[in-house]
Amino acid sequence: MKKMILILLGMLFLPTLALAEDAPISEMAFVLNTFSFLIMGILVMWMAAGFGMLEAGLVRSKNTATICLKNISLFGIAGILFYLFGYNLMYAGVDGGFIGSFGFWSADDAAALTGDFSGGYAASSDWFFQMVFCGAACSVVSGCVAERIKLWGFLAFCVILTGFIYPIQGSWGWGGGWLSEMGFADYAGSTIVHSVGGWAALTGAIILGARKGKYSKDGRVNPLPGSNIPLATLGTFILWMGWYGFNGGSVLALGDAASAIEMSNVIANTNMAACGGMIASMIMVQIMYKKVDVTMGLNGALAGLVSITAGPATPSLGSAVLIGAVGGILVVLAVPFFDKLRIDDVVGALSVHLVCGIWGTMAVPITDPDASFVTQFIGVAATGAFVVITSSMAWFALKYTIGIRVSDEEEMLGCDATEIGMEAYPDFQRVSIGGSSGLSGYATSPVARVSSKKVLN
Amino acid sequence: MKKMILILLGMLFLPTLALAEDAPISEMAFVLNTFSFLIMGILVMWMAAGFGMLEAGLVRSKNTATICLKNISLFGIAGILFYLFGYNLMYAGVDGGFIGSFGFWSADDAAALTGDFSGGYAASSDWFFQMVFCGAACSVVSGCVAERIKLWGFLAFCVILTGFIYPIQGSWGWGGGWLSEMGFADYAGSTIVHSVGGWAALTGAIILGARKGKYSKDGRVNPLPGSNIPLATLGTFILWMGWYGFNGGSVLALGDAASAIEMSNVIANTNMAACGGMIASMIMVQIMYKKVDVTMGLNGALAGLVSITAGPATPSLGSAVLIGAVGGILVVLAVPFFDKLRIDDVVGALSVHLVCGIWGTMAVPITDPDASFVTQFIGVAATGAFVVITSSMAWFALKYTIGIRVSDEEEMLGCDATEIGMEAYPDFQRVSIGGSSGLSGYATSPVARVSSKKVLN
Amino acid sequence: MKKMILILLGMLFLPTLALAEDAPISEMAFVLNTFSFLIMGILVMWMAAGFGMLEAGLVRSKNTATICLKNISLFGIAGILFYLFGYNLMYAGVDGGFIGSFGFWSADDAAALTGDFSGGYAASSDWFFQMVFCGAACSVVSGCVAERIKLWGFLAFCVILTGFIYPIQGSWGWGGGWLSEMGFADYAGSTIVHSVGGWAALTGAIILGARKGKYSKDGRVNPLPGSNIPLATLGTFILWMGWYGFNGGSVLALGDAASAIEMSNVIANTNMAACGGMIASMIMVQIMYKKVDVTMGLNGALAGLVSITAGPATPSLGSAVLIGAVGGILVVLAVPFFDKLRIDDVVGALSVHLVCGIWGTMAVPITDPDASFVTQFIGVAATGAFVVITSSMAWFALKYTIGIRVSDEEEMLGCDATEIGMEAYPDFQRVSIGGSSGLSGYATSPVARVSSKKVLN
Repeated sequence: MKKMILILLGMLFLPTLALAEDAPISEMAFVLNTFSFLIMGILVMWMAAGFGMLEAGLVRSKNTATICLKNISLFGIAGILFYLFGYNLMYAGVDGGFIGSFGFWSADDAAALTGDFSGGYAASSDWFFQMVFCGAACSVVSGCVAERIKLWGFLAFCVILTGFIYPIQGSWGWGGGWLSEMGFADYAGSTIVHSVGGWAALTGAIILGARKGKYSKDGRVNPLPGSNIPLATLGTFILWMGWYGFNGGSVLALGDAASAIEMSNVIANTNMAACGGMIASMIMVQIMYKKVDVTMGLNGALAGLVSITAGPATPSLGSAVLIGAVGGILVVLAVPFFDKLRIDDVVGALSVHLVCGIWGTMAVPITDPDASFVTQFIGVAATGAFVVITSSMAWFALKYTIGIRVSDEEEMLGCDATEIGMEAYPDFQRVSIGGSSGLSGYATSPVARVSSKKVLN
Repeated sequence: MKKMILILLGMLFLPTLALAEDAPISEMAFVLNTFSFLIMGILVMWMAAGFGMLEAGLVRSKNTATICLKNISLFGIAGILFYLFGYNLMYAGVDGGFIGSFGFWSADDAAALTGDFSGGYAASSDWFFQMVFCGAACSVVSGCVAERIKLWGFLAFCVILTGFIYPIQGSWGWGGGWLSEMGFADYAGSTIVHSVGGWAALTGAIILGARKGKYSKDGRVNPLPGSNIPLATLGTFILWMGWYGFNGGSVLALGDAASAIEMSNVIANTNMAACGGMIASMIMVQIMYKKVDVTMGLNGALAGLVSITAGPATPSLGSAVLIGAVGGILVVLAVPFFDKLRIDDVVGALSVHLVCGIWGTMAVPITDPDASFVTQFIGVAATGAFVVITSSMAWFALKYTIGIRVSDEEEMLGCDATEIGMEAYPDFQRVSIGGSSGLSGYATSPVARVSSKKVLN
Repeated sequence: MKKMILILLGMLFLPTLALAEDAPISEMAFVLNTFSFLIMGILVMWMAAGFGMLEAGLVRSKNTATICLKNISLFGIAGILFYLFGYNLMYAGVDGGFIGSFGFWSADDAAALTGDFSGGYAASSDWFFQMVFCGAACSVVSGCVAERIKLWGFLAFCVILTGFIYPIQGSWGWGGGWLSEMGFADYAGSTIVHSVGGWAALTGAIILGARKGKYSKDGRVNPLPGSNIPLATLGTFILWMGWYGFNGGSVLALGDAASAIEMSNVIANTNMAACGGMIASMIMVQIMYKKVDVTMGLNGALAGLVSITAGPATPSLGSAVLIGAVGGILVVLAVPFFDKLRIDDVVGALSVHLVCGIWGTMAVPITDPDASFVTQFIGVAATGAFVVITSSMAWFALKYTIGIRVSDEEEMLGCDATEIGMEAYPDFQRVSIGGSSGLSGYATSPVARVSSKKVLN
C-alpha cells in the first residue's frame, strides 16, 4: 500500500521519474499522448491541402484541375496503402534490420482497455500520425512532375511509394532499423520524409523529361509562370501551419512536463526557421536579381521548414533562424542549378525538399551533441541510394507498361482537357502564353504576356 | 482515509471504473472533455468554410459572390437561432418524446465551479459543439439550391431549419427522444445532420425548379461546369479535415483512456472511408465514362465521409474503406439519377448527403451488433418524413410571401449582379458560356468552351 | 506523509484550491496550460493566412501577388523581431512602468524540468502565443495601405511596429505596466492588438495618401472593387476560426475546470459576436442601400469579433450578440465616414479594427463590473496617442529615406508588375477597369465593367 502511494506521488510530482521504465504511465498521460497524435496528425493531414494549393497555384491554368485531383487522390491512396502494407513494413518486427513485415495493420488496445497504459497511446492515433507523414512524402512528388505526367501513371507510382518505398526506408531510421541503431538523428523527417519525396521526384523528373517549351535549344530557360499566386500563398500558409504539427507532434508524447516543454521548443523553432528561410531568400533574391520574387519567398519559408525538421528540439531560437536562413539561401541557388541541368521541377520541390532535406539532416550535429556528421551522412546517402534505385525501377516499369507521359498534343492542350475532361476555370478567357502552337516562344515579361490578346487553343 | 486513497488509486489505474456511475469524474477528465468539445467544434465550424469553398468552386462565376455570402451568413444565423430556440428544443426535457422545450439557452456551470464535476464538461463547450452541427446541416442545403434562389428567401429558410426543423428531429435521436429510446444508432449524424440537410435540399430543389438551361426540352442534360476547381478541391480538403472533428468529437468525451482509444479509432475510420469513397468513385467513373472527373472524385471522398458518420467507432479500417467505397459508388450512380428526375442539384449535395446519409445509417448494423436494421430504417424514414413535410411547408410559405426564386432575367445576369451588386471576379474577362441569351445551348466540350470568344453579358 | 496525501487529494478534488497560491500546480495542469498556448497559438497564426486571403481578395488583381507576399513576409518579420526585441520589451521587468527591457528572448524551463511547475507553462509556448498576437497587429496594417505602398518600405515599418511600437504599448496593459495597475481591461486585445494596428494603419493611410482614382476632384468616391470575393470570404472564415484561439487562448490557462469553463464561455461568446456583427451589418446595408453587399457582411462579422475581444468572458450569449451587432452597425457607418475624410482604406481595416477596437474596449464595463469606463477610456486614448505619434515618426522617417509610395506609373501598372515582377493571375485576360490611363474614370456598375472589352495595360 505504502509503496503504491509512493509510486503515485512520484508519478505526480516527479514527472521525469514517472516515465522511467519501472513506473506505470498514468491514464491522463495516455490520453494526452493520444490526443497529441490526433491533433498534430490532423495538422499534418492539412499539409496535403497545402501541397495541393501550392501546386495548383504554381502550374499553368490548363493543368490546374489535374494537379488538384492528383493531390487529393494521392492522400487517399496513402491511407489505403499504409493500412495494407506500409505501417507494418515500417514498424512491425524491424529489429535493427532493413524491413518490417507484411500484413494489414489492425489496432490492438487490449492492454490499455484493461488498465495497463504502458503502451503509451491509442494504437490508431499512432497509425494515423504515421500515415499522414507517408502522405506528405508522396505530396512532394506531385508538384515536381506536374504538367506532363499521366494521371493514372502518377497514381500507380503513389501506390508503390506509399506502400513500399517510403515505409521500407522509414523502417531504418524510425522503425527501429539499422540506421536508428547507428544513432541516425532525423527528428521529424528532413531525410525520411522530405528528401525521400525529393529523390523520388528527381528520378521522376529525369525519366519523364522536361515540359515542352521549358528549355529552348539555344540553352535559354523559359519561365512558365504559375497561374494563381494567392493559391500558392495559401498553400504555403497551410504548410507552415501544418508543420507545427509535423514537428511538434514528433515529440511523440504530451504526457509529462518534459514532453510539453520539448513540444513548445520544437514549435517555436519550427516557426523561427520558416521566418529565417523566408527573409533570407527574399534578401538574397533582391540582391541577385534587384527585385523580389513572391514564389521564391514562399519557397524560402518552406526551405526553412524543411531545414529545421531533422533537429527542431535542440537549437535556440536564434540558431533556428540561421538554420532556416541557410535553407532559404540554398533554395535560391538550387532553383537555377536544376534548370542548368535541364531538370524541370515545376514548383521547386527538389530545391526545397531534397536540397534542404539534406542540409537539415547534416545540420543536426551543429546543435545536437548526440548526433554525428558521419552517421548523418550515411543516413542521407543510404536513403538516397535506396530511393533513387527503387523509384527508377518503378518509373521505368510504369513507363513501359501503362505509360507515364502524356502525348505532345495532350501536353499542349493541357492535362485538364485531355486527362480529366474538365477545366479548372472554364468561365475565364485566357491569354495566349505561347505562339500558335502553344509549344514554344513563351513570353517572359508579365507586361508582354498581359498585352497579348490571343486566346489559348 | 483508506477508502479515499483506494478511490483515488482506482481512478488513476482503473479508468473504466473511474467513470462508473458511483465514482466522481476527476477535474482533469472534465477539462479534457471540455477541450475536446472546443477543439473538435472548431474543426466542425471550419467545415462551414469547406462547404463555402466547395460551392463557390462549383457554381458559375456569375453566382459565386452570392454563394459565398450565403454560406457565411447561414453560419451566423445558425449560431443565433440555435441559441434562441435550437438547443433547448433539441436537448431540454425531451424525455423520450418528440420535442424539447422553448427558451433561450444559457450556460449553467454552478456545480462544476464548486467542485462537482459530474456534469462532465463545461456547458458552453457542449453548446458550441452542438451548434456547429446545426450549421453543418444547413450548409448542405445552400449548394443544392444555388444559382436561382433569392438571398433573403434562402436565409429565411435557414432560420426555420436551424431554429426548428433540425433541432426538433435532432431531439429524437440525440436529445433523449423516442428514437434514442428505440436504440437508433447515428453516431455523428449520417441521418440527423446529413440526410436532414439532404431532405431539406431535395424539397427546395423540387419546389424551386431547375436552373434555366440545365435541362433541354429534348431531354438532354446540359452540364453547367463549376467555375473554380481549386476552390472546390480546397473545400473538399477542409471538409475532410473538419470531419475528423465531426466524428471524433462525437465520442463526447476525452477524459479517460477508453474515450481516447475510441476517438482514435473513429478518426482513423473516418479517414479510411474518405479514401475508399474517393478511390472507388474515381475507378467507377473511369470505367463508366473512360475518363476520370475531378468533381466526382471530390464528391466520392465526401460520400465516403457521410457514409461512415453513422457508425465510425465499430468498423475495422478495412470495413471503413468498404463502407466508404460503397458511398463513392452510390454517388456516381446517384448524380445521373437525379438528373434523370430533372431535380437540379448544383453541387451533388443530394447524392452525397442524402443518399449516402441513408446508406451510412443502414450500414451501422453490419459492424455494430447493438444496432438493428429495422430501427435504423424507422429512424431514416421518420426523419425523412418529418423533414420533407416541414421543409415543404416552409418553402411554400416563403414562396408565396417574400418569394424564393429570382426572375429569369436575374438568373441570366447572375445573382451576383442582381442580388448583391458585386461580382466575384470583376477583373477577368469571361468567356460566353451560352448563346446570346445565356439561357440555353451551353457548350459541353472544354475545348469548345475555351475557344468561344464572346464575353458574357 | 499524511499531509502530502491531503495535498494530493486536495489537488484532485478541489481544483479551485489547487491553484490557490500556496498549493503546487500539478504537472497535468502545466501540460494542459502549455498545450492550450500551442494549439490556440496555431489558430492565431492561421489568422495571418486569413488576413492574407481577405486582402488578396479585396485588392485589384494587379496588386494581388504583392499583398500576398507582404502578408506572409510580415509574419516572418514579426517572429524574428519579437524574438530579438519584442517579447522582452513587453514582458521583462515592466514593473508598473512604461517599457520592458532590451535583450533577445530565450526559454528558461529549468524549474519545471526539476519538478517545480509553479511557472504554469513551458516558456516557449507562452512566447509563441504572444508572438502570433504581435503578427496579428501587423496584419491589420497591410490591407489598409495596400495598392500604393512600396514593398520594402512597408516591411521596414513592420520591423518597427513588431519590434518596438507594439511591444512597448503592450507592456502597459499586458506586461504588468501602468495600465494594468490602473485596472485597464482588455482581455484579448481590442485595444492592444486591433486598435494598435488600426492607429498605425490610419497614420500610414494619411501619410501615404489615397490611391490614384479613388477620389475624384468633384468629390465623388469611386469604388475599386476587390478582385476575388471567394478568397475574401475564405479569409473571413479563417479569421473567424482563428479568433476562437485568439480569445479562447487568452484565458492563458487550461489546467483546471474554472479555466476550461471560462474558455468555453469565451469561445461561445466570440462566435455569437461574429454572428451578431454579420447579421446586423447585412440588415443595415439592406435598409440603407436596398441591396446587401458581401464585403460589408464579411466586415460585419470581423467587426463583431473585434468588438467582443476586449471582454469575451463576462457577457451572456445574448449580450455577446448585441455587442457584436453594434460593431456590425458601426462598420457600415464608418466605411463611408472614412471615405468622406478621403482616407483611403483598401479593405475597411480602420472601420473594423480601429473603430470596433475602441467600441469593444469601451463596452467592457457594460458586462464586467470590475472594469470602469474612465480607465478604459484612458487606455484607449493613451494607446492611440502613443501609436499615432510613434507610427507617424516611423512613416515619415521611411518616407524621406527609402521611400514608401510607388510612382504614379508603377501604381497604374500595378505593384505586381513593378515591385515583384510577377502577376497573380497571368493566364487570364483582364477587363479594363479604367480609361486608357487606368488612373481615372473607373466604371462603377458591375455590368458596365464586365461589358468593357479593353485589356488593362
